[in-house]
Amino acid sequence: MPAKHLNVALLGTKFMGKAHSHAWSSAAKFFDLPGDPVLKVAVGRDKPSLDEFATRWGWEETATDWQHIVTRPDIDIVDIATPTALHCEMAIAAAEAGKQIFCEKPLALDLAQAERMAAAVNAAGVTSYLNHNYRRVPAVAFAKHLIDTGRLGRIFHWRGAYLQSWIIDPTFPLTWHLQAEHAGAGPLWDLGSHSVDLARYLVGEIASVQAVTKTFIEERPLPGADAGTFKSGGGNAAARGKVTVEDAAIMAVTFANGAIGSFESTRFATGRKNANLFEVYGEKGAVAFDLERLNELEFLDATLPSSEQGFRTVLVTEAEHPYLSAWWPPGHVIGYEHTFTHAVADFVKAVCGGSPIHPSIPDGVATMRVLDAAKQSAATGTRVACCGPA
Amino acid sequence: MPAKHLNVALLGTKFMGKAHSHAWSSAAKFFDLPGDPVLKVAVGRDKPSLDEFATRWGWEETATDWQHIVTRPDIDIVDIATPTALHCEMAIAAAEAGKQIFCEKPLALDLAQAERMAAAVNAAGVTSYLNHNYRRVPAVAFAKHLIDTGRLGRIFHWRGAYLQSWIIDPTFPLTWHLQAEHAGAGPLWDLGSHSVDLARYLVGEIASVQAVTKTFIEERPLPGADAGTFKSGGGNAAARGKVTVEDAAIMAVTFANGAIGSFESTRFATGRKNANLFEVYGEKGAVAFDLERLNELEFLDATLPSSEQGFRTVLVTEAEHPYLSAWWPPGHVIGYEHTFTHAVADFVKAVCGGSPIHPSIPDGVATMRVLDAAKQSAATGTRVACCGPA
Amino acid sequence: MPAKHLNVALLGTKFMGKAHSHAWSSAAKFFDLPGDPVLKVAVGRDKPSLDEFATRWGWEETATDWQHIVTRPDIDIVDIATPTALHCEMAIAAAEAGKQIFCEKPLALDLAQAERMAAAVNAAGVTSYLNHNYRRVPAVAFAKHLIDTGRLGRIFHWRGAYLQSWIIDPTFPLTWHLQAEHAGAGPLWDLGSHSVDLARYLVGEIASVQAVTKTFIEERPLPGADAGTFKSGGGNAAARGKVTVEDAAIMAVTFANGAIGSFESTRFATGRKNANLFEVYGEKGAVAFDLERLNELEFLDATLPSSEQGFRTVLVTEAEHPYLSAWWPPGHVIGYEHTFTHAVADFVKAVCGGSPIHPSIPDGVATMRVLDAAKQSAATGTRVACCGPA
Amino acid sequence: MPAKHLNVALLGTKFMGKAHSHAWSSAAKFFDLPGDPVLKVAVGRDKPSLDEFATRWGWEETATDWQHIVTRPDIDIVDIATPTALHCEMAIAAAEAGKQIFCEKPLALDLAQAERMAAAVNAAGVTSYLNHNYRRVPAVAFAKHLIDTGRLGRIFHWRGAYLQSWIIDPTFPLTWHLQAEHAGAGPLWDLGSHSVDLARYLVGEIASVQAVTKTFIEERPLPGADAGTFKSGGGNAAARGKVTVEDAAIMAVTFANGAIGSFESTRFATGRKNANLFEVYGEKGAVAFDLERLNELEFLDATLPSSEQGFRTVLVTEAEHPYLSAWWPPGHVIGYEHTFTHAVADFVKAVCGGSPIHPSIPDGVATMRVLDAAKQSAATGTRVACCGPA
Repeated sequence: MPAKHLNVALLGTKFMGKAHSHAWSSAAKFFDLPGDPVLKVAVGRDKPSLDEFATRWGWEETATDWQHIVTRPDIDIVDIATPTALHCEMAIAAAEAGKQIFCEKPLALDLAQAERMAAAVNAAGVTSYLNHNYRRVPAVAFAKHLIDTGRLGRIFHWRGAYLQSWIIDPTFPLTWHLQAEHAGAGPLWDLGSHSVDLARYLVGEIASVQAVTKTFIEERPLPGADAGTFKSGGGNAAARGKVTVEDAAIMAVTFANGAIGSFESTRFATGRKNANLFEVYGEKGAVAFDLERLNELEFLDATLPSSEQGFRTVLVTEAEHPYLSAWWPPGHVIGYEHTFTHAVADFVKAVCGGSPIHPSIPDGVATMRVLDAAKQSAATGTRVACCGPA
Repeated sequence: MPAKHLNVALLGTKFMGKAHSHAWSSAAKFFDLPGDPVLKVAVGRDKPSLDEFATRWGWEETATDWQHIVTRPDIDIVDIATPTALHCEMAIAAAEAGKQIFCEKPLALDLAQAERMAAAVNAAGVTSYLNHNYRRVPAVAFAKHLIDTGRLGRIFHWRGAYLQSWIIDPTFPLTWHLQAEHAGAGPLWDLGSHSVDLARYLVGEIASVQAVTKTFIEERPLPGADAGTFKSGGGNAAARGKVTVEDAAIMAVTFANGAIGSFESTRFATGRKNANLFEVYGEKGAVAFDLERLNELEFLDATLPSSEQGFRTVLVTEAEHPYLSAWWPPGHVIGYEHTFTHAVADFVKAVCGGSPIHPSIPDGVATMRVLDAAKQSAATGTRVACCGPA
Repeated sequence: MPAKHLNVALLGTKFMGKAHSHAWSSAAKFFDLPGDPVLKVAVGRDKPSLDEFATRWGWEETATDWQHIVTRPDIDIVDIATPTALHCEMAIAAAEAGKQIFCEKPLALDLAQAERMAAAVNAAGVTSYLNHNYRRVPAVAFAKHLIDTGRLGRIFHWRGAYLQSWIIDPTFPLTWHLQAEHAGAGPLWDLGSHSVDLARYLVGEIASVQAVTKTFIEERPLPGADAGTFKSGGGNAAARGKVTVEDAAIMAVTFANGAIGSFESTRFATGRKNANLFEVYGEKGAVAFDLERLNELEFLDATLPSSEQGFRTVLVTEAEHPYLSAWWPPGHVIGYEHTFTHAVADFVKAVCGGSPIHPSIPDGVATMRVLDAAKQSAATGTRVACCGPA
Repeated sequence: MPAKHLNVALLGTKFMGKAHSHAWSSAAKFFDLPGDPVLKVAVGRDKPSLDEFATRWGWEETATDWQHIVTRPDIDIVDIATPTALHCEMAIAAAEAGKQIFCEKPLALDLAQAERMAAAVNAAGVTSYLNHNYRRVPAVAFAKHLIDTGRLGRIFHWRGAYLQSWIIDPTFPLTWHLQAEHAGAGPLWDLGSHSVDLARYLVGEIASVQAVTKTFIEERPLPGADAGTFKSGGGNAAARGKVTVEDAAIMAVTFANGAIGSFESTRFATGRKNANLFEVYGEKGAVAFDLERLNELEFLDATLPSSEQGFRTVLVTEAEHPYLSAWWPPGHVIGYEHTFTHAVADFVKAVCGGSPIHPSIPDGVATMRVLDAAKQSAATGTRVACCGPA
């Protein structure tokens, strides 16, 4: 029985466009899926580079007018892989056109946008997926399994940190990531959204937030002609502009279930490249994770005799582990992009089965409420309550 | 030239009394000191166990009346190794008697006590040392050296955590550590004071604090007859009392120099025994430390070519490293108690040289101000300014 | 300018067939290649599963008669991904037909076969590549760069080990891997060939070998009907057969350049899944690697001040690192299968450029001489000289 | 009841004299012992430095004539902490005088000496202890406990290595360690004896050995006036002498119980300071140890579900762990010198109880047979059988 064809339109062809293209083209090779994604149209702004991209990745068509594509009847899935500022308009248009939505994070520029997106998705009844892809790291999914089966018992602590270091050089130019009107916020949105999503996935809803934010370098050279290059020294040294997002944020939170937690999101953690870290401590056990060693989960079983306890490094590559039976034998590790393939596989199953997938765009609203509360707390110095799930 | 004899009176003969006794008796063996500590009098309350203790450790005399001993003319040094609630009275009496003071941490039950102690010490002009012994872990002292010589450049982040797990069992009894009138506070005082002391040592003064605290287990069995035993299930199950200190605390702070920082102090981090952790990220480098691997310092030099950067595990056992020339050849690691020996050695030098030693009791006031601000912030939910150095 | 099409015939459609298929289909997406691999024909024995495989991976045709395909004029590249026992005949046929050869390891059942293969390849003048894919782990290629640029200086020690644990269960059946006529040898061939290839790549030619081998479980149940399943307990418990290969091997060697080295290859290292480990110690530095953490290279620079030395964990994901600019931003790790993509990319460049690629089949002969010497030494107990490069 | 006094005579006052002195003076403080070691006489050659040493460490008397002291009626215990070349004569004299013997390793210059020492000890019926102190690292003793209680099951592999790096600099002078007549051998004796002792303790007797040895730097400057300094560049550059011991050795062995093993002993492992490493792999579990992190034991329990297996880092500081109840609370780590204190405590118990202690001098003969076989194998290239226990 041939699988149902699902025509995908991809909006955005940079870093995320590449990662998504690979996922759409490889998911059905490694996973048995009820639907067969077809790389139908790639949408970008610069025609020559768009065509090169489409040829390389096998997109059948290209277009520069996303509004037209999003409403095209033959398109089943709209994949939003553009900069944050465009997400809201695109997602609402896609929802209103009845398309299934695969959306990159962070969800939106602000909470108001996020709520409008969720309303549109809910009204349209379409499947939406917000790509906090780290839920689908096998080690993270295995941590979830351990928690859900009671192996940690009552949870006391979440310790989350997402540490990067790519803009420490003061000559790094003022790219869109550093401007509030294009990015919404700095690492709080970009990195903190991942951490909060993971905390909500593994621990539960966050009840209150206190936060500090800091911009270490307040002015930077404007980007040069090639505004897209993420290169230090690449800017126009003479012309400078103001950084309007935070460089780093720290949050101290309470969870609805009585746990407490900390979050740290920064682009100034010298030497840390993509260290999405978390630890969860519970009455019966604990887990620890580091995205830079994503094939491993540290697990401590506190029900063992005390003389035998210790954090054990579980190499999460056994066939019994989540997603792993699709890949290679035990000990043969996977990488970053595999999480996108997992997301596509799960999304296709959800779309074909009419079942929900998480995190959805409405889930993203709950995350955004926490981040918005952090912004408020940083500004006012007071503890801010969050509203829980959307 | 025989070294000057320094007669020591030790107040307190439990865990800290043992650690201090070993330090007083070993410091002059490993280090060349200008003074020779004499283990003169050990002061305790229970005569039989006190005598056994004194015999074992070589204290010449014993006494049960500390007030008398503290004023005895032949005593040069008063070593306060009692529970927190006794520190204030003892330190003031010792200062007023003109004795040099070696005092265990946490400094006092509250900020008011701490300030009175500092005033007494300052008025008397005696040398005081507050035993935040982890400044004298060679790896920590080496981190200080790297920072002081500019190897980290401008500092952006402090990430501190002191994680233990010894009271997770709800049958663990209500010892004095869990009662505010005896302990002042929970891990905020006990563990957080160490972390804040290290942050002040390595990064600088803290300007503001936001904090969350939590008591996970609000009632516990009263201790049994042997109230001293730290054993789960050892209490009187029928009689229960209220825990009046926090079980865990999280702080988000700003430093006076523009850095930001996080602190976590908890007795509920399952599987962590004595994990006094910190990371410091600066413009030119970063360091990371874990007390459970106290012979190692992780150091990243961000001035190297990016392809060669990485956190390197420096085994801090070279003769060039702080304190190490007194011990063993490279690669022969030292342990927890060595930090006490280092403290005694430095204290003896300070006493004999008339030079100050840090942290002093006045330094402890500055630390206490931060912790007190954390308590306030946790209660009110607002950011609280600290006053900087005492 | 459209790239030249290169028609590939794949022989073998199991584990390696899957890994190779993914590499052939993804290499030109991530790398700019002078040739465009076309997945032309997949060759297998079982028609139904072969067809399913070809559909999934995009092979245009299928065939069950490899001899016919290997000589087909439109085939440019023959990819040998079958069990070891078939390599010799296939490679010779492919060479004689003038095809470029991409061959899985271990090279052959024995040294005599290997030499015949090399002779055929040399006579035909075709490009051959032997897939010791771990040379193309970026961290390994970076280690090679460090060594080649003198960062380790004179090399003293190679410490290699390839540790697995998949046949410890005595109910694991007597698959072909455990029978000399099908596999040639046990881990010495399967794992040791990788280690020796890496040692020759990084250190140089091996001059002499002393070895111990051991078969821990000498008899096993015959495989059941589904002989292909690698499952413990899956065999026919009643019928048992003799294991005719070693379960583990240890080698102590001398290198032609004066270094000495150790190798350990085993399927009985409980808990190690795919631990291909090596350490290289030189006068000026050292490196250490573990395939289970393949994105990391441990590097020690012994020219730094001794107080600052330490093994640093270089996350080999910078754009400056080998192969990485084709993938993701720093800190976004890659996995096992990426090494196959790298191999295909380099192979395509070699084929199109007429340049050699290493390791070639003749390189494999040199490796096989070392392994053959190990077998002899294990049998006789004496040191056996190797002949160096083929 | 006062403990029996045991008068100790210490022969040798350098590195080991210091470590032993500390152990003799601290053991009865931390452990409840049936005998009370008295630091009676320290014996050395240089009177001024000897007196300084004795004063510092509390030895009651000094002497330069060891023969006289060894036979003195009031001496109970003779502690041999001199260079290797003196061990044989001293141990035999002590045994003949009926003294209990605490002897540093390596045992002797060669197997013949070792056998004479064992014969003397056996004839005299005295208690002898050979100070392979690493058996008394708590983590190692805990590994022994796991093995003895069947947690590893049948053992397949021993992987041992003792890696140092202190003589890589070619200007390091020709100290006695590098001369066969003074040291017997190089790292094979010095480091390999520790590894073989541990392997015999944890796995069992060694049946056969194959070995490679290598001297990387064959000539070195003669030591300067201060021959004792272990400093590069400290020698007399003009005068040079021949290194007559190996710089490194690799052994491949079989055990009597069917396991196989590897050993590597070297002073040329750049960056490794005191890395005494071992791994033991068994049917039901595995352990791994590194002396540079001596408070930790890596333990894998292969009887757990495969998805939950992993090497766990057990921090061996619980009161239930060997020796730890004498020290500090969980998580408060110990160091190198504590192993000497453990050895003294166990030795005093053995002496007072009339029970044996291991390793004894006769145990050392068995170890020496293995090392002697390695020397032979390295010279001849052939496998050499060992005789098992003395």
